[in-house]
Amino acid sequence: MEQKFEEKLIQIEPGEQKLRLDRIARHLQDAGIDAVLIADHANLFYLTGRVYCGFALVRADGTATYFVRRPTHLHGDHMQPIRKIEDMPALIGTLPSRLGLELGLIYYNTVERIRAAFGPGVEIVDATGVMRAVRSVKTPVQIDLMAQSGAKQTLVYKNIPKLYQEGMSDVELQIEIERSLRLHGCLGQFRVSGQDMEIFMANVLTGENADTPSPYDFAMGGAGMHPSLPVGADGTIIRPGLPVMVDANGNFTAYMTDMTRCYILGEPTDEAIRLNQLSADICRAISEAAVPGAKCSDLYNMAVEMVREAGAQDYFMGHRYHAGFVGHGVGIEINESPVLAPKSRDIIQQGNTFAVEPKFVVPGLGAVGIENTYAVTEGGTRRLTTAPEDIISFE
Amino acid sequence: MEQKFEEKLIQIEPGEQKLRLDRIARHLQDAGIDAVLIADHANLFYLTGRVYCGFALVRADGTATYFVRRPTHLHGDHMQPIRKIEDMPALIGTLPSRLGLELGLIYYNTVERIRAAFGPGVEIVDATGVMRAVRSVKTPVQIDLMAQSGAKQTLVYKNIPKLYQEGMSDVELQIEIERSLRLHGCLGQFRVSGQDMEIFMANVLTGENADTPSPYDFAMGGAGMHPSLPVGADGTIIRPGLPVMVDANGNFTAYMTDMTRCYILGEPTDEAIRLNQLSADICRAISEAAVPGAKCSDLYNMAVEMVREAGAQDYFMGHRYHAGFVGHGVGIEINESPVLAPKSRDIIQQGNTFAVEPKFVVPGLGAVGIENTYAVTEGGTRRLTTAPEDIISFE
Repeated sequence: MEQKFEEKLIQIEPGEQKLRLDRIARHLQDAGIDAVLIADHANLFYLTGRVYCGFALVRADGTATYFVRRPTHLHGDHMQPIRKIEDMPALIGTLPSRLGLELGLIYYNTVERIRAAFGPGVEIVDATGVMRAVRSVKTPVQIDLMAQSGAKQTLVYKNIPKLYQEGMSDVELQIEIERSLRLHGCLGQFRVSGQDMEIFMANVLTGENADTPSPYDFAMGGAGMHPSLPVGADGTIIRPGLPVMVDANGNFTAYMTDMTRCYILGEPTDEAIRLNQLSADICRAISEAAVPGAKCSDLYNMAVEMVREAGAQDYFMGHRYHAGFVGHGVGIEINESPVLAPKSRDIIQQGNTFAVEPKFVVPGLGAVGIENTYAVTEGGTRRLTTAPEDIISFE
Repeated sequence: MEQKFEEKLIQIEPGEQKLRLDRIARHLQDAGIDAVLIADHANLFYLTGRVYCGFALVRADGTATYFVRRPTHLHGDHMQPIRKIEDMPALIGTLPSRLGLELGLIYYNTVERIRAAFGPGVEIVDATGVMRAVRSVKTPVQIDLMAQSGAKQTLVYKNIPKLYQEGMSDVELQIEIERSLRLHGCLGQFRVSGQDMEIFMANVLTGENADTPSPYDFAMGGAGMHPSLPVGADGTIIRPGLPVMVDANGNFTAYMTDMTRCYILGEPTDEAIRLNQLSADICRAISEAAVPGAKCSDLYNMAVEMVREAGAQDYFMGHRYHAGFVGHGVGIEINESPVLAPKSRDIIQQGNTFAVEPKFVVPGLGAVGIENTYAVTEGGTRRLTTAPEDIISFE
């Protein structure tokens, strides 16, 4: 006889899940959408605490139905096994008049197939922004998961000097950092929203390579090891006096933190120390100003002003190519809301978690600067990435 | 003064690129499509030898225009810098009447934005299948890149027994394999087409965990380390007599090979040896039968027949959950055409490269079986993954 084998669909505590469902419901009501049919893995994970192949329908009254194609051994309330998209409408009961889909995150053909399955009586509208807004405000449980990631990432970063060996290239150091992250429980996966960013585990930059622009929407570039993934370390040997900037995967709990620190063989130059300190000062200033109600465009402009006063504007967020932001939301994915950029309309809210990364690329010196992840909590802004902020020597 | 800094857009030899352009052109002509506007990274890489942020327009006459948003330092013939989608139509000249897009691979909102930019005179049609068909037939240059990946992957697999240390868990062994792959030049990235598959670097399975179904479209499952990425190793300690199945990232050249081998602490049981040999026999039989013109459904059925004769059908491609294929195309991505499945309409052609993975999951024993990648060349079917096929002992 076959042994019975089942697993719970929902991997979040009921009270916590209700918080999230209610938040989605409120946003749906505000947007005049009757229900959202979620397909994106990050949004499914937000809602259920797991990734599965299927969909979740959340209605504006806060109820949900989970349509699961695979795996087939899950069970739980409000779960409906399906084999294909077309199975869903008959299982829903009264169809929503206005059905939200993540039109900015799912493929054209999938959307058209859903539209056909639900028929002409159901108006399809975009709910990408709804889900993005919902996820930009974290619950205390989510912030705690991020703090756990931050603590582990900090531990690994503190040990990076021990990983350096004489003659190493940027990518060789990166491989040892990858291993250390993994041994500390890093899940490896680097979730990004959308199709414009790709990266593997880390961006480690030293020397001239830091000034190579990349196609991706990251703060820093680098040529990478291959034109199929043109970002980050390119095999440059680590040399005395040139900072090594490490921006590595902080995903230990499916809620990631984002942290950058600089390391160096020998002693940093005065210019490197000055710009690294400027970066840390900007992080601190922004984190103090990021109170609920603060405009994210103002936070960006505050950074630019501090950079200008220090005469470092030519190097800010790149030299040949300047990235157009200084911070970004982070959580399940590395590019969430709010965005700290000149034209951002985002307003800081309690529950926001975001990374600030004022970085500099100086010809002849390379990349220098730090990055921290912060959470806006009831008690003020909390730093989740607590490794020392100075440039750390490998010796 | 700023130093001039440029890089060539096209990273493929002109003759080789012409082969690829002509192949796309021929498929467009057959499909009655005037031009395809490529956005998908894997398809952009196929065409140009690099990933960039932007688009490529390939016309049915075999000419191409490359629209580049980022990076901004590229140069080359037929290249047009753009800032946004809406810049493209004015740069094209005569607009195509029927414009193909990868409707199965790009987001709904992106498609609608392109449609609006090109105006009502341009009919948008699906070219996902065209690009999939084009890419399923590799040039000798591409097969050579895959052979290079296969050679490196084979080298790493041969060294896996040296990576095992007493008391290791599946994921601890995986981390050492990851490091070894990376030190041998593995790029890390695991390109998959579509939104239904996620994995990090490898699937390492031992014991009961092999029988946990996953949400993804892979041959094997495993619970994984976290419900946000529920596939593969789950922390099970490696125990004597239970095979450890290793299916790890073979992407060393942006053209990957796919290989699986089993390792063991102590000696394999007779049943493990028998099923592993059956798997190797099926691989060989399929590779010999995979001549141009062979039906992929027949190749699948040949595997099923051999499994039935051996009385192993309950364990084939899983036990609790059975995957519905025995092989798949591989190249830039892990899930290309042809597909070796019962309802596949694919016919083997010269230039196809595909993995065959007849695997078994046996209660009390775990996962056993092998996987090889083959290329259908003028001189016959060539095996690209040449590690020994037996179950290898860690000692």
